[in-house]
Amino acid sequence: MALIPLPLERLLRQLGKLPGLGPRSAQRVALSLLQKPEALAELQRNLADVAAQLGICEHCGNLAFNGRAAPVCEVCANPARNTGVLCVVEGVADIWALERSGVFTGRYHVLGGVVSALNGVGPEDVRIPQLVKRVRTDEVQEVILALGASVDGQTTCQIITDRLMPQGVAVSTLAKGMPVGAAVDYLDEGTLSLALAGRQRVA
Amino acid sequence: MALIPLPLERLLRQLGKLPGLGPRSAQRVALSLLQKPEALAELQRNLADVAAQLGICEHCGNLAFNGRAAPVCEVCANPARNTGVLCVVEGVADIWALERSGVFTGRYHVLGGVVSALNGVGPEDVRIPQLVKRVRTDEVQEVILALGASVDGQTTCQIITDRLMPQGVAVSTLAKGMPVGAAVDYLDEGTLSLALAGRQRVA
Repeated sequence: MALIPLPLERLLRQLGKLPGLGPRSAQRVALSLLQKPEALAELQRNLADVAAQLGICEHCGNLAFNGRAAPVCEVCANPARNTGVLCVVEGVADIWALERSGVFTGRYHVLGGVVSALNGVGPEDVRIPQLVKRVRTDEVQEVILALGASVDGQTTCQIITDRLMPQGVAVSTLAKGMPVGAAVDYLDEGTLSLALAGRQRVA
Repeated sequence: MALIPLPLERLLRQLGKLPGLGPRSAQRVALSLLQKPEALAELQRNLADVAAQLGICEHCGNLAFNGRAAPVCEVCANPARNTGVLCVVEGVADIWALERSGVFTGRYHVLGGVVSALNGVGPEDVRIPQLVKRVRTDEVQEVILALGASVDGQTTCQIITDRLMPQGVAVSTLAKGMPVGAAVDYLDEGTLSLALAGRQRVA
């Protein structure tokens, strides 16, 4: 259809492939931008600003925004962070969530995914070899596996544990149990049995 | 939080205000772009291409993509389109929908909204004065009001009808009734009563 020219068609196609967007929502987003030229210009500016500074931290795989040739993220560049403890996460969004909680003072290691037989992702496809090497060279004392409580997440925990065992480093996973604010009668059986098995003595 | 630098913060805030997106989906969209630099570059390219050509048709208010100082849209620039019939729509997305059906061969007039007492939108805030002027100068014979079957849409139809009456132009609205594929027992009462009132004799 000549009504939608090729550049707009390309924009619509790309927007429609972004997570959470489909063809219809891409059309709404595009129209809202096209009808406010200042919003379109602002988005171009914002993307350019981010792209100019963006890099991947060469230590941990986190996003780095110092725009240098050897990018280092905020966490790895912070001398106050404990270098002896590594928290292994699937993606950058997990770091953001953990930093919001503000209780972790060590450093991170971003796997960039989890091992998944179903999706054909092997241990070498995520940054597990880099983790093993880093634990050795950085003299890490503890590794906390903060991966999702899914089958793939737990498989990945097992694989990492097996590979780190020979190095004599302490490996732990996040506690499993009731989330804060949960009602017992709404919990699924899996969570309930884990919460029961991991019950904590109070008296 | 220093972890999310100002440019990214600005990008997240803007993405979160786009229609259909919120803070969380904006974060997912941004991360999917940041983790694939080629996708980020492609989006920048697509936006720049569209922005370079974008204009608003000075006749009908449709988007125009010829990048000229006096933008004219595909429909108005097409000499095969009937100049005697104007289809009045609320927005550009409506033109896209009508063009997909492929049955309308006249031209369009984009109001850029509907009159709404609740939202404080008066007849002069949408392009109704331009429509009245256009009907006079372009010697339009028929105006089809293709506005939503909402209270505001129908109020706007009435206002336009009142203003066009003195000019002796034929004014019609879209038929109301059952949508194609609808089951009678799922129709709301409003649609059913309109469908009954507008019943068509077949024998």
